[in-house]
Amino acid sequence: MNKKALAILLRSKMRPLSPVSNKVNQLQHAPLEGNRLATQNDSIKTRRDFGQVRESMHSVISMNKKEILDTALNEFSEGYFSLSQENRHKLLLILAQEYDLNRTKVRDLMKQYVGLEIPNGDETDEHGLEMDGQLSAFYRIERNLRHALKPMYEVLFERLNTHPGGLKFLASVRADILSIIADENVASIRALDSYLKEKLITWLSPANLELHQITWNDPASLLEKIVAYEAVHPISNLIDLKRRLGLGRRCFGYLHPSIPGEPLIFIEVALMKNMACTILEVLWHDPPTPECEATTALFYSISSTQPGLAGINLGKFLIKRVIYLVKKDMPNIYNFATLSPIPGFMQWLLSKLASSERSGPIFCENILKPEEERALLDAYMDSTTGRNGMEVLLHLLTSTNHEWTQYERLITELEPILLRLCARYLVLEKKRGKALDSVANFHLQNGAMIGRLNWMADRSEKGFSQSGGIMVNYIYSLENIEDYAQAYFSTGHIQASPDVHHYIKPLERNEDPIN
Amino acid sequence: MNKKALAILLRSKMRPLSPVSNKVNQLQHAPLEGNRLATQNDSIKTRRDFGQVRESMHSVISMNKKEILDTALNEFSEGYFSLSQENRHKLLLILAQEYDLNRTKVRDLMKQYVGLEIPNGDETDEHGLEMDGQLSAFYRIERNLRHALKPMYEVLFERLNTHPGGLKFLASVRADILSIIADENVASIRALDSYLKEKLITWLSPANLELHQITWNDPASLLEKIVAYEAVHPISNLIDLKRRLGLGRRCFGYLHPSIPGEPLIFIEVALMKNMACTILEVLWHDPPTPECEATTALFYSISSTQPGLAGINLGKFLIKRVIYLVKKDMPNIYNFATLSPIPGFMQWLLSKLASSERSGPIFCENILKPEEERALLDAYMDSTTGRNGMEVLLHLLTSTNHEWTQYERLITELEPILLRLCARYLVLEKKRGKALDSVANFHLQNGAMIGRLNWMADRSEKGFSQSGGIMVNYIYSLENIEDYAQAYFSTGHIQASPDVHHYIKPLERNEDPIN
Repeated sequence: MNKKALAILLRSKMRPLSPVSNKVNQLQHAPLEGNRLATQNDSIKTRRDFGQVRESMHSVISMNKKEILDTALNEFSEGYFSLSQENRHKLLLILAQEYDLNRTKVRDLMKQYVGLEIPNGDETDEHGLEMDGQLSAFYRIERNLRHALKPMYEVLFERLNTHPGGLKFLASVRADILSIIADENVASIRALDSYLKEKLITWLSPANLELHQITWNDPASLLEKIVAYEAVHPISNLIDLKRRLGLGRRCFGYLHPSIPGEPLIFIEVALMKNMACTILEVLWHDPPTPECEATTALFYSISSTQPGLAGINLGKFLIKRVIYLVKKDMPNIYNFATLSPIPGFMQWLLSKLASSERSGPIFCENILKPEEERALLDAYMDSTTGRNGMEVLLHLLTSTNHEWTQYERLITELEPILLRLCARYLVLEKKRGKALDSVANFHLQNGAMIGRLNWMADRSEKGFSQSGGIMVNYIYSLENIEDYAQAYFSTGHIQASPDVHHYIKPLERNEDPIN
Repeated sequence: MNKKALAILLRSKMRPLSPVSNKVNQLQHAPLEGNRLATQNDSIKTRRDFGQVRESMHSVISMNKKEILDTALNEFSEGYFSLSQENRHKLLLILAQEYDLNRTKVRDLMKQYVGLEIPNGDETDEHGLEMDGQLSAFYRIERNLRHALKPMYEVLFERLNTHPGGLKFLASVRADILSIIADENVASIRALDSYLKEKLITWLSPANLELHQITWNDPASLLEKIVAYEAVHPISNLIDLKRRLGLGRRCFGYLHPSIPGEPLIFIEVALMKNMACTILEVLWHDPPTPECEATTALFYSISSTQPGLAGINLGKFLIKRVIYLVKKDMPNIYNFATLSPIPGFMQWLLSKLASSERSGPIFCENILKPEEERALLDAYMDSTTGRNGMEVLLHLLTSTNHEWTQYERLITELEPILLRLCARYLVLEKKRGKALDSVANFHLQNGAMIGRLNWMADRSEKGFSQSGGIMVNYIYSLENIEDYAQAYFSTGHIQASPDVHHYIKPLERNEDPIN
């Protein structure tokens, strides 16, 4: 890396943008903060700006001259970014409602269609020619209907997609659409979102994405993105970044030709002798395993960079392509696994415990076994009497600075309890038939298996808050990926190793109404 | 270029494949010539093969397991190439007819839709919520209808597109579909073609294409393609190829990430002081103009490599991007023009002359002016009397080896006649409102203007046969491209320079029923 590139990299933030500040508008343009303190004049100015942006949006949709179209597209996207969040919402609502499809035309075509007689499908029909003519009418109306069923805003999306910078812009627009939906559930905006999402899925099909191995030789402008977007284990400094791209490590990203120099999603891989039990082994293991001795590729971080691509699973294809690539390059590697956080475990457990506190001992499920409760109360030598095991557990887990992690005895007693509850959370707790935990859901739908729970695997503040420090290995075994993914997709079946099942047998198994 | 690469290049054919032999199957797999002489046994074998390929096609469309899907896709595409042309046609007919859409389902959805009441579009409606609910129903059925209107064969296309090598395979399939349509006009095959064409247009959108400058440093495997597919001016030897990639020359191609190392279309450019009048200036001009003195970028050849992409205009975008690129790199260049063949001129003229011979002098239009006829008869000192000018012209133009080109006097007399008729052919002769000449239609729809006709510009056998040796410069002026393209698209208006109009004034103008 040359000096200038290094200087740029050093200047860049060495912490990921926090979720709150990680708003798309800040990554693109400074938001017009002044508007918030708007005087009367400012407010008139804002209104005029809004009118202009709306006008340019209309031009983009309706004009035919390609030359001026480029100017209009630039004007529109610049204007859009200059709008306040409120005005963007207003504009998107107009787009969804006033640039919808022509329902009268759709109905007219339908009436024509319903009036047609379905020809006899018998191929040996002697009236072959006549049948062909009848079918022609079907094909014609079907083609017309396909076009009539496209909302007018499709033109905007299509034109932006082929415009330089347009695909990235559309991802930002979708991020705004998602934030509107989070605030308020409007049918037309939902329809806009689902249409744009389908388009994005097409444009971002794996065939259009380029797998790129990210190395220390890449431009600083690209590496800066890795630092900014690493969502799982923040990159603390340059040495840390260099280590993640160096010996015994790999980093792969998916790039789209229209969004150069910025991976849409990237994955970090450690080449190891064994499947790691703690994240420190991965992040600080020094020196790394010689690559020729490695048998395991451990995926320890996967981050996407575009909030507007939420719900579009690029990670699935990325993981599979990386597995094939690593397997081809290094035939000695045969284990493919993750070391993953369990972001929803504590939240789920604390809400279980809190609700039991509220509803009292009679109406709630005691999620502790009697022997667990006894051991816990013994270890927890607080003088306050009358507290039951669940109350103690809640108190310990919500103590400031995770105080329980300072006491050896508490750690020992909590280990079997939290591992068992964590196994239950991962394997049995579901929402609409899918794993409740978002990371679990991601890997399960990709065809992974829950392999092993690791106690005290992530001792960071975030690790303790999210999952009591527990991490999980999801295992990708090439021969089973498709079967597992299919079973999870169709029946919600969660594949887990005997080790993991062991935690929840037999008690939890009996609780499961299905078994 | 290394020695091995050079050896491969030398081994490659140094002539373009002739149109007849340029069949897709030969580029992919050797055709099963044996089948033509099929014995009884062979014919049974062919039938079984056909059944297998049909089976694998069905698997690709219906199966859900991604792992096995890749195998099925490979099996299908290999099997397809092993089929005889006849069996391919049979298979495509099955695809078009048996994997069509479900018309019963479409009708059911339509009935639901027609039963819905269109809500009052008044945004200030106080029943906002209720309206939202009603709209939800519309959106839902519209989305379902969009899906129901997709034929089942879309799955095959989509899956092939994301499969390695699948996009190129689909282009071959489309080439086969086009050849079926050329033989026989079946509605279902036309619908299959129009659906696949729309898909290909989406996948090959300029956003997905990479502009690549082809140089002598490119791999021999890519340069080999340039030699094989150069459709306008055959590349005669290695020196010729090297010259076309060397000083004062440029070659650009559009590559798709899924079809690596093979441009879908490429354009050859000569940097010159003036717009060339003859193709020899371009192909043999030695030494070339120093690049710093060049003011003109002359596009002298544009060739597409995939017969299956017929009707998908990639050239339009390629030309525009090349203009912008050259303009940016070399600000001294401000003229952008082609030196183009006129492939249909002679065919049109000869058929005019022949039909006049058949229908006799009374019913046909005399396309020669009296003074032209006189001059021609004077110059043509054949003793046979009683021949009129048109007969003489037909005789001269169809003489073996274009004998007329050996006689100075004939050349002199024919020059104004052929230039005038050529201008008429290019500017006034239309088919369905578009220029009759295919190359003219291509450049006019891209927004070019007919700039200048050049006498004796292509003295090759092909040049004389196609256009009596005349070539034309189409001029791309950046400020007018969009206007001209728009006017041609909407009204069929053909933009031509005053020089070109001069040939056809005033006589031809009066003949034009519009003027």
